[in-house]
Amino acid sequence: MTEGHLDNRRRKFWGWGFADTGISEADVHALGSMIHGKFGFPIQDLAPAPEIGEIELRSPRVSPPDSLAGICAADTWARAEHTLGKNLGDFARGLDRKFDNPPDFVAFPRTEQDVVSVLDWAHENDVAVVPYGGGSSVAQGIEPIVSDDYRGAITLDLRHLNQVLEIDHESRSALIQGGVLGPDMENQLRPHGLTMRFFLQAFEFSTLGGWVATRAAGHFASGLTQIDDSVQALRVVTPKGTVQTRRLPADGAGVSADRLFIGSEGALGVITQAWMRLQDRPTFRVGTSVPFTDFDKAVAATRALAQSGLTPANCRLLDPTESLLAGASDGTESVLVVAFESADHPMDTWMRRAAQICADHGGRVSAEALQGKSAPDAARTGAAGKWRDFFVRGPYYKEGYTRMGVLRETFETACTWSAFPELHARVVEATTKAARRECGDGVVACRFTHVYPDGPAPYYTVVAPAKRGAETHQWAAIKQAASEAVLAAGGTITHHHAVGRFHRPWYDQQRPDLFASALHAAKSAVDPGLVMNPGVLVDGK
Amino acid sequence: MTEGHLDNRRRKFWGWGFADTGISEADVHALGSMIHGKFGFPIQDLAPAPEIGEIELRSPRVSPPDSLAGICAADTWARAEHTLGKNLGDFARGLDRKFDNPPDFVAFPRTEQDVVSVLDWAHENDVAVVPYGGGSSVAQGIEPIVSDDYRGAITLDLRHLNQVLEIDHESRSALIQGGVLGPDMENQLRPHGLTMRFFLQAFEFSTLGGWVATRAAGHFASGLTQIDDSVQALRVVTPKGTVQTRRLPADGAGVSADRLFIGSEGALGVITQAWMRLQDRPTFRVGTSVPFTDFDKAVAATRALAQSGLTPANCRLLDPTESLLAGASDGTESVLVVAFESADHPMDTWMRRAAQICADHGGRVSAEALQGKSAPDAARTGAAGKWRDFFVRGPYYKEGYTRMGVLRETFETACTWSAFPELHARVVEATTKAARRECGDGVVACRFTHVYPDGPAPYYTVVAPAKRGAETHQWAAIKQAASEAVLAAGGTITHHHAVGRFHRPWYDQQRPDLFASALHAAKSAVDPGLVMNPGVLVDGK
Repeated sequence: MTEGHLDNRRRKFWGWGFADTGISEADVHALGSMIHGKFGFPIQDLAPAPEIGEIELRSPRVSPPDSLAGICAADTWARAEHTLGKNLGDFARGLDRKFDNPPDFVAFPRTEQDVVSVLDWAHENDVAVVPYGGGSSVAQGIEPIVSDDYRGAITLDLRHLNQVLEIDHESRSALIQGGVLGPDMENQLRPHGLTMRFFLQAFEFSTLGGWVATRAAGHFASGLTQIDDSVQALRVVTPKGTVQTRRLPADGAGVSADRLFIGSEGALGVITQAWMRLQDRPTFRVGTSVPFTDFDKAVAATRALAQSGLTPANCRLLDPTESLLAGASDGTESVLVVAFESADHPMDTWMRRAAQICADHGGRVSAEALQGKSAPDAARTGAAGKWRDFFVRGPYYKEGYTRMGVLRETFETACTWSAFPELHARVVEATTKAARRECGDGVVACRFTHVYPDGPAPYYTVVAPAKRGAETHQWAAIKQAASEAVLAAGGTITHHHAVGRFHRPWYDQQRPDLFASALHAAKSAVDPGLVMNPGVLVDGK
Repeated sequence: MTEGHLDNRRRKFWGWGFADTGISEADVHALGSMIHGKFGFPIQDLAPAPEIGEIELRSPRVSPPDSLAGICAADTWARAEHTLGKNLGDFARGLDRKFDNPPDFVAFPRTEQDVVSVLDWAHENDVAVVPYGGGSSVAQGIEPIVSDDYRGAITLDLRHLNQVLEIDHESRSALIQGGVLGPDMENQLRPHGLTMRFFLQAFEFSTLGGWVATRAAGHFASGLTQIDDSVQALRVVTPKGTVQTRRLPADGAGVSADRLFIGSEGALGVITQAWMRLQDRPTFRVGTSVPFTDFDKAVAATRALAQSGLTPANCRLLDPTESLLAGASDGTESVLVVAFESADHPMDTWMRRAAQICADHGGRVSAEALQGKSAPDAARTGAAGKWRDFFVRGPYYKEGYTRMGVLRETFETACTWSAFPELHARVVEATTKAARRECGDGVVACRFTHVYPDGPAPYYTVVAPAKRGAETHQWAAIKQAASEAVLAAGGTITHHHAVGRFHRPWYDQQRPDLFASALHAAKSAVDPGLVMNPGVLVDGK
């Protein structure tokens, strides 16, 4: 067998990032001071991060056959690295050295044929397979929890399927392997003047195949939000064989085959390649941020923008608490960050109209924005820039929060504009109440990550004092209250974090029963042994 | 039992439109003169349209139970009206008085419970059910051809489910019944200042449910092209029960339930209601038409427009023959019709940039367009206006062509920009050759109905001298040649005309086999008796 760390750079087995990167303890302390200063929460001494020597894993239940041993690893690091995701509960369990559900081994296929071989072996041997991209799931989508009816569970880490295989510049698309991480993909596209422009927060440690499998949403706030619309064709290896859809800009021939696999979360097969629609690299950019004293008016402005047809690249509304957390305001105002970009034409006309819409709704719009120009400090140093830095560093901070005894986690949804006011009120009330009950204190912040003509995608951040060792339980209770409120008020359990295992109870309420039957039947047709990521979307054995 | 013509206005049982409307014989003669003048094809005396008294139908194999008799009709008109679609083969068979596959009776549900009752009865009695909207299928999607393993086949005509039930103005959406015809829907939306702006050519005689079931594409040439993206939530009655999806602007919770039913062509169930995303009524409009002497350069201009991010409402490229047919040019030039519309802001900046792109590619752009203004004659009387009239009257002309002995039919596809040149060359060559072989002569015209950043949707029109009584055979042979060329060159068998029964051979080649298995399994879960539109997408018994 091989060892797990086949990259040039080993990834952490706990937390976020490479083993040799992360935020410094000084940065974590600064974060703690900020939290304490703003909310008065007690900050604890930093809990020591786990060392690999401290981790004990159960013995593997199965081993790879000789034919696959060369691409498989069962060392502690490899197995631990593939045990937990990136949710608060994952971080807390990591800090507690609790790695209860490791894969029995990890396969690192180097070719699509390797994927086929692993699935064949798993199907024949009743072993569950968890497809693994960058491991950034916050919904327990990659944690190998399976019933005893399986002989074991393995992880299929696709990191070596990391190439841009072909460029079709004329059709502005590329054939890309599923296991490529965001930065590696962009580095391969850059020489061709192309980009996917899909900069989600987990960009560094998530993959193309993972984005498609989980219906991830990128940084575009309107227009091309979710990955779904950027998929031109898919190649999916299932236990019954390989599915290759046709490269088409659009198709009207029956039910979309692509859409059956988009969002399938590894439960139907492994996305080994996809033809993806790309963008030209933008050359024209303009942006601003607009403070509002009244949140409801800011929401109305955002709705007007979303329905205007202007399709802003950025249209992120931060409520006062979120603005405070991001350092974008003193916590008394909402801030709407608006930006446009184009590779074809200046966006000043678009910006001017957007600024006017904001002004019409009571936003304090800069003179520059009203003229279609960026405010001098918009890009990097103003509220928009502060928000951007906060966004990019978020995943790194996350382990810091856990170590300092601050419970900080997020959840997100989408709903119609008409449903939003009540949803927001109920969610904030239920979540705050649960946080105070479980943690003694707590604040709930809201931003819109994406907006549509018919509704926003609100994203909530909860910050509360954590009780060391009880974080998982605390968060589960808060999440329960929040999810019930979301569903009761007409939202979805997730706009872009996927279902995984964590969201199953609410997903099962949300989806139509007959659709569940149809999906189970479709799964059985391509995965008759139910070995693909069992428990995710569809029950396993 | 009732009678079929429960509307105020009876619809034709053959051809297009209401029984009391249509184009005059004088109009048909003028059309014939035009065709003769332009292409030299012989024009025959107008074949007499069939009268209902001339139609003989096989005896019904099944009758409705007493509980359903009040909403069912089995008179000759009702059965004949629901036998044929609107393809050339349908029109030719109608002219030949050949109505070989009538439904045994037609059910006209007045409530969703009626739909449930009909499906329950059909499931229990092994009777096939063909859901029927406006009857505009050009792919034999509504012709009740089923095997002898069914006791019979009935049509479920949804015309009475024709109400806009609820408006959510804030979220710019509405709950609409599936059986509403285009004009009736727009009439109900207009008082609210809303519109779907989905003006496909079959607008008058096609329904919301039909659009969703067939993935129809509207008049928007870019952006919101296919209906798929306008569906917010669906309600579908299947033999196993009713599916209601959640109203959401976007959702990331697993595989999309909506997308399983969008494009299901009646094979999974009946779309009784949908929450649809709407538009504000546009108040700003600008448009122009741009002649090009070089078709390849016109294609390049269209591609640049499609990739510009400007999202023109109209972006229809007519090749020289299509321009000639439409009266938009003398047949020596290609014409690109470009238009923008908005309910929020003037579109002059958009038009100006689009005009510049056209000029950069060699188009003869008017001075007005370069200033972002409509040419004085753009809207109704210029090339764009001529094209519009031609488009709107197309379905009415179609029966005229058949009666005068002119074979005129269309087929359409979509492909990537890189695939287009070879696809176009192969399709034109194969189709022209087949037309000459079958008809002795023939011309093939092309336009782009829709354009995407990664490729166009080319739409081909074939005009040839028909041999009376042999049109169905002639067209089948031409279509065979065209379809083989389309598939070999990487196109889809249909961008927006659906699969039905006519496209099955090529659809079966195009779709991945494992997806076919998955779809069959999904169908079996909601329609275990396989009674829903058997033969469409999925084989019946």
